[in-house]
Amino acid sequence: MKLLRYFEGDTVRPGLLDAAGVIRSLAGEVADISGPALDAATLARLAALNPDSLPRVEGAPRLAPCVGGVGKFMCIGLNYSDHAEEAGMAIPEHPILFLKATSAIAGPQDDIVIPRGARAVDWEVELGVVIGKAAKYVSEAEALDHVAGYCVVNDVSERDFQIKLSGQWTKGKSCDSFGPIGPWLVTRDEVADPQALDLTLDVNGQRMQAGNTATMIFSVAQIISHLSQMMTLHPGDVIATGTPPGVGMGMKPQPVYLKPGDRVRTEIEGLGMQSQSIRADD
Amino acid sequence: MKLLRYFEGDTVRPGLLDAAGVIRSLAGEVADISGPALDAATLARLAALNPDSLPRVEGAPRLAPCVGGVGKFMCIGLNYSDHAEEAGMAIPEHPILFLKATSAIAGPQDDIVIPRGARAVDWEVELGVVIGKAAKYVSEAEALDHVAGYCVVNDVSERDFQIKLSGQWTKGKSCDSFGPIGPWLVTRDEVADPQALDLTLDVNGQRMQAGNTATMIFSVAQIISHLSQMMTLHPGDVIATGTPPGVGMGMKPQPVYLKPGDRVRTEIEGLGMQSQSIRADD
Repeated sequence: MKLLRYFEGDTVRPGLLDAAGVIRSLAGEVADISGPALDAATLARLAALNPDSLPRVEGAPRLAPCVGGVGKFMCIGLNYSDHAEEAGMAIPEHPILFLKATSAIAGPQDDIVIPRGARAVDWEVELGVVIGKAAKYVSEAEALDHVAGYCVVNDVSERDFQIKLSGQWTKGKSCDSFGPIGPWLVTRDEVADPQALDLTLDVNGQRMQAGNTATMIFSVAQIISHLSQMMTLHPGDVIATGTPPGVGMGMKPQPVYLKPGDRVRTEIEGLGMQSQSIRADD
Repeated sequence: MKLLRYFEGDTVRPGLLDAAGVIRSLAGEVADISGPALDAATLARLAALNPDSLPRVEGAPRLAPCVGGVGKFMCIGLNYSDHAEEAGMAIPEHPILFLKATSAIAGPQDDIVIPRGARAVDWEVELGVVIGKAAKYVSEAEALDHVAGYCVVNDVSERDFQIKLSGQWTKGKSCDSFGPIGPWLVTRDEVADPQALDLTLDVNGQRMQAGNTATMIFSVAQIISHLSQMMTLHPGDVIATGTPPGVGMGMKPQPVYLKPGDRVRTEIEGLGMQSQSIRADD
């Protein structure tokens, strides 16, 4: 099932994408695609619906972030060995966690806005994991039982804010619009192996990132198990699991950053595609 | 005004503390003490009420976190020069930001729970700032206009999780129960100068921390202005502004950490007192 959220005027509605690529409204079925709707029973109930019986959403509405009410937007740093290498960082012994402000979450086609004074806005395609069932002290073996599904994340990052403003990465990760998620929350049953997905990111039609989740240092199951030793992962929490090589900061002979007018296209096998325009803040 | 939230059975209700120290229900006035109720107009409306006309809450109900629906729980690290010294860290050039998971937020008298395997749970009394009006690109001069009020925060921290699990502090800051806030959200009009407040923290009756917000490296206004250059601060967001000296990690000849059965008492001048029991997780 490909769950999504779309705008009807200023209101966000829950929906799903049917086999023909048509958006069907779930407004009569759930209040929102968010934590309370991501338990196994609700997902099974939605999966049992005949999409043809659901109201067809005409046109091409603006898509909202594929999950609402996200409590924690957790990100794993340096989780691809080849990206750690391009960043000049050692392979971490444990998953590196930072939090991205949930106020950074944006729709998959919303503009990425360069904050005033920013000069180093970079891209990072990442596999997003959406929690469906609360997880505390879970083992690796049972970790994936706590996953509702997966989505595309662009972990947009301002490198000067991240690195040059006195330690900790959060400032460069949390700017408004820096967290596009979606287009869809693809339920776990449709993703045979989260460790075998191609990821790509293009800027202005040029391929910048190409990787596969097979080369993650810590698997999705290891990440969930590890984080759950520290804190409860709640339904609707999102984990961005790190980025493969090819970020702008690592370009030779010099870094390449996003500028107004650029277009970014981000895709993960089976999880759909994001497309953003870059603009400067007013 | 001293706004608060209290439990009535399993339900959290909004309230205020009257001049006699009696809790009065605000359930007929606002849905919750959270972002949508923190704008100037709503606060003025509540301030104009006669507390004697509000339902009296009998007994001593369990207090909930003094703000609900917190979007971002932002923390400033090393913001007292003498604490930076005890931690052996340089004075930062800019405010150091990290995010604490909002799932760590707890009531002011709730138990602090030591996670399984944790051996270095520490305390940090901090002045909490609650945003009342959205702030983006604000100057220092206008920053305090965006504050709804202030509260006590204990930025509980597991030092091994924070420091020994591969970089970034978030893991040690985000454990469940590690973010008691309250007892009250004291509105800005009752705090003449946020840079002249005594803070203290006792463990088992022994004074461990004693400081004053006058010795902050970055003032509340500077912090708000700085963070708002990166991201929008939304109503209901909370900023913990750093801790004065006296944390367990800095004790000589060796660090002192919390153990089951300990009691922590945290107080800020005019903002009330927190009191927590420490227990191990089951």
